[in-house]
Amino acid sequence: MEGQLAHIGAGLAAIGSGAAAIGVGNVAGNYLSGALRNPSAAASQTATLFIGIAFAEALGIFSFLVALLLMFAV
Amino acid sequence: MEGQLAHIGAGLAAIGSGAAAIGVGNVAGNYLSGALRNPSAAASQTATLFIGIAFAEALGIFSFLVALLLMFAV
Amino acid sequence: MEGQLAHIGAGLAAIGSGAAAIGVGNVAGNYLSGALRNPSAAASQTATLFIGIAFAEALGIFSFLVALLLMFAV
Repeated sequence: MEGQLAHIGAGLAAIGSGAAAIGVGNVAGNYLSGALRNPSAAASQTATLFIGIAFAEALGIFSFLVALLLMFAV
Repeated sequence: MEGQLAHIGAGLAAIGSGAAAIGVGNVAGNYLSGALRNPSAAASQTATLFIGIAFAEALGIFSFLVALLLMFAV
Repeated sequence: MEGQLAHIGAGLAAIGSGAAAIGVGNVAGNYLSGALRNPSAAASQTATLFIGIAFAEALGIFSFLVALLLMFAV
C-alpha cells in the first residue's frame, strides 16, 4: 500500500477545486444579475468581474495543484 | 505506509483552500451586484472590496500552506 | 505509522480555516452590498466591518493554529 494513500488525498484535493467553482459562480452570477438589470453600467465593471474571478479561481487552482503534486510529485 | 497519511491530510487541507474561494466569491459578487445597481458609488468602495478579498484569500492561502507543509515539510 | 494520524487531523483543521473564509466573505459582502446602496452611510459602519471581519478571521486563524500545532507540536 506504499504511496497509495496519496491518491485518496488527491481525490480530496479535487473536492476543493470543485468548491472554488461555487465562489467563481457567485462572482459571475452576481455580475450577470446586475448587468442585465442595468446594462449601461456593465462595461464599467468588467475589470472588477475579472479581478473577482481571478482571486476565486486562484484558490481552486491551488487545490488542483495539490492534487497534481500528490499524484506525481510525492 | 510510513509518512503517507500526511498525504491524505494535504488533500483535506486543499478542500479548505477551495472553500475559501466561496468567501472570496461572496465578497466580489456582492460588490458587483451593488456596483451595477449604483455605478457612481462603485469607486468609493474599491478599497473595501480588496480588503475583504484579502482577508478571505488569506485564510485560503493558510490552508494551501498547510497542504504544502504536509507534503514537503513533515 | 507513528504520529501520522496527527497529519490527517492537520488537514481537517485546514478545512476549518477555509470555512471561516465563508464567514469573512459574508461580512464583507453584506457590507459592500449595503454601502453601495447607501454610500453616504458607509463610512459610519467601517468600524463594524472590521470588527466583524476580525471575529470571523480569528476563528479561521485558530483553525490554522490547530493545524500548525498538530504538525509541529504534538
